[in-house]
Amino acid sequence: MTTLEIGKQLVELCKQGKNAEVIEKLYDKDIVSVEAGAPPGGSAETRGIEAIRGKSKWWADNHIVHSATCDGPFPHGDRFIVRFTYDVTNKPQNRRLQMDEAALYTVKDGRIVREEFFYAMG
Amino acid sequence: MTTLEIGKQLVELCKQGKNAEVIEKLYDKDIVSVEAGAPPGGSAETRGIEAIRGKSKWWADNHIVHSATCDGPFPHGDRFIVRFTYDVTNKPQNRRLQMDEAALYTVKDGRIVREEFFYAMG
Repeated sequence: MTTLEIGKQLVELCKQGKNAEVIEKLYDKDIVSVEAGAPPGGSAETRGIEAIRGKSKWWADNHIVHSATCDGPFPHGDRFIVRFTYDVTNKPQNRRLQMDEAALYTVKDGRIVREEFFYAMG
Repeated sequence: MTTLEIGKQLVELCKQGKNAEVIEKLYDKDIVSVEAGAPPGGSAETRGIEAIRGKSKWWADNHIVHSATCDGPFPHGDRFIVRFTYDVTNKPQNRRLQMDEAALYTVKDGRIVREEFFYAMG
């Protein structure tokens, strides 16, 4: 698959709320995921598909998604950008919040090897 | 200025249509600009502030902007992403077209040193 085809699949699956399927279908086993900011006491970087599955499951288990949008992909060489918005409730905090971000994906040999999330904090 | 402050200035100036001012206020003299695709017979890469001024002037001289949006910035470390849409008429071709893209900027020592445009072609 080309970078554009992978980007289109990712956007299509995200629009259907199938985020776990994105990982299984498109991510490399050595995927690296980098947040714009580290959680308190944690790292901004997550390495390897097992750890990413855990991060994705934690997110799904701890948020109620009221609505979400997914816009793109915007390709450039072996990378593409996708724009995301989420209106969610964080269950442990019982707090509703809006997330507004962009993600930069890097593709190698037909799999996503790196995802970087861009957003303002605070 | 922080990466976020530079991103906010860029978005503010773009919203006002002051794209030339972005170059003078925020770009490093050794700025590198990279398109997703090369024009026929040309290069995807433009180097140095003089060449970028020329590219910007060519674009302004050859397009009528009917409307434009500029969304962001989305920061991550020393980089930020901005989402752009343009509804323009290309004057030489007398053809109206819609551009839908994302740009990834890299900041060093308070100036933008790299801009990369992400969009689908064809």
